[in-house]
Amino acid sequence: MVLTVHHLGHSQSDRIVWLCEELGIPYELKKYDRSPLLSPPKYIALHPIGAAPVITDSDADLTLAESAACADYIIHIFGGGRLAVKPGAKNYADYLYWFAFANGTLQPAIGRCMALRFAGISEENNTYVRYQNKVDQSLKLLDQRLGKSTWLAGEEFTAADVMTVWSLTGMREFYQFDISEYANVLAYLQRVNGREAWLRAREKGDPDVDTESLLQGPSPLLFKALRK
Amino acid sequence: MVLTVHHLGHSQSDRIVWLCEELGIPYELKKYDRSPLLSPPKYIALHPIGAAPVITDSDADLTLAESAACADYIIHIFGGGRLAVKPGAKNYADYLYWFAFANGTLQPAIGRCMALRFAGISEENNTYVRYQNKVDQSLKLLDQRLGKSTWLAGEEFTAADVMTVWSLTGMREFYQFDISEYANVLAYLQRVNGREAWLRAREKGDPDVDTESLLQGPSPLLFKALRK
Repeated sequence: MVLTVHHLGHSQSDRIVWLCEELGIPYELKKYDRSPLLSPPKYIALHPIGAAPVITDSDADLTLAESAACADYIIHIFGGGRLAVKPGAKNYADYLYWFAFANGTLQPAIGRCMALRFAGISEENNTYVRYQNKVDQSLKLLDQRLGKSTWLAGEEFTAADVMTVWSLTGMREFYQFDISEYANVLAYLQRVNGREAWLRAREKGDPDVDTESLLQGPSPLLFKALRK
Repeated sequence: MVLTVHHLGHSQSDRIVWLCEELGIPYELKKYDRSPLLSPPKYIALHPIGAAPVITDSDADLTLAESAACADYIIHIFGGGRLAVKPGAKNYADYLYWFAFANGTLQPAIGRCMALRFAGISEENNTYVRYQNKVDQSLKLLDQRLGKSTWLAGEEFTAADVMTVWSLTGMREFYQFDISEYANVLAYLQRVNGREAWLRAREKGDPDVDTESLLQGPSPLLFKALRK
């Protein structure tokens, strides 16, 4: 066993557990609990940035962070390039766009609103409204895409889907927002929930999470350490 | 001419102009000015997300956004794979990490602080302090890396550098922060400024920007539309 996925519960490292299950590759799963909200000291000690995901590859003496980097590394070093789209393929640009959109636009937009909410800014505040509009615009774009395409990069499931689903599900335990008006996004999440690899990843990685509530339009409950 | 780079002045699309100059590939540069702060209507009309960068490839009937997607597309479709690092190369993981770090960690951390400052949150506010710490942590990590390595992915300049430099330079016209304490970052920016392709990109893309001030430790002046 050379690949280890260091999975922080209730975090975007669920992307990497899911990816490994989709690829059907051997990996060791090491689980860590938040304490009570942030990464525990043992997780922070893994990598200078202190955030999930982190993977290690003992054969290569490697510790790697960043979802996009971990995903590409696993796909190309362990997965024979599966779940990526190759340069020259018809949907190459679609794949690149939606893979990058997850952490380049959608997740940062949500993160800015979360910061404003944590700071106690009213949702009527002009700055808040402007930033919430970026979240809405991103969700609308996703919804339009998913009205035309089964998966984000086309008719085949790819790592672009693995990158994106966290922002629509687990992220809403930390920044609550309702996705009920995005019918195509909701249908997509049900398709995700029909995947055996997704179900295995949930069971192995996050058995204490109410996954069903993450897949519905109304926002799930706040993560327990954030409840007042 | 098939590749067009739609460059919004004073924006992260400068990454793409710079990339094309580094690759030495033919491209058409179309320039747009902010009006006065945000993208002008003509730029917003290019792509549903309304943000820079946007590229078009007339041969492929393609319009593409997202820095990371545009960079990968140009590198692999027009650049013969140059400035990326291939799977299996010794520094493949370093390349993936620093390429992803730019928009996965550094830029979102700055964006959250910018949102808080725009909303009028005091820099002594606990939430602000916590988020500013993420920016400082990211800059410290960069500085440590650049103390050991000429370029981010190793001894050769790559697209990971192209992705990162915007957050240290142009971004500071929108969210002012001082990088004087990061000596390795400052030396790195001077190495960037020694590259002919960088100088050509500045001259073609942003001749009205005081580039010299972007490369210094003290923050440059705020972008004119943000000054009070």
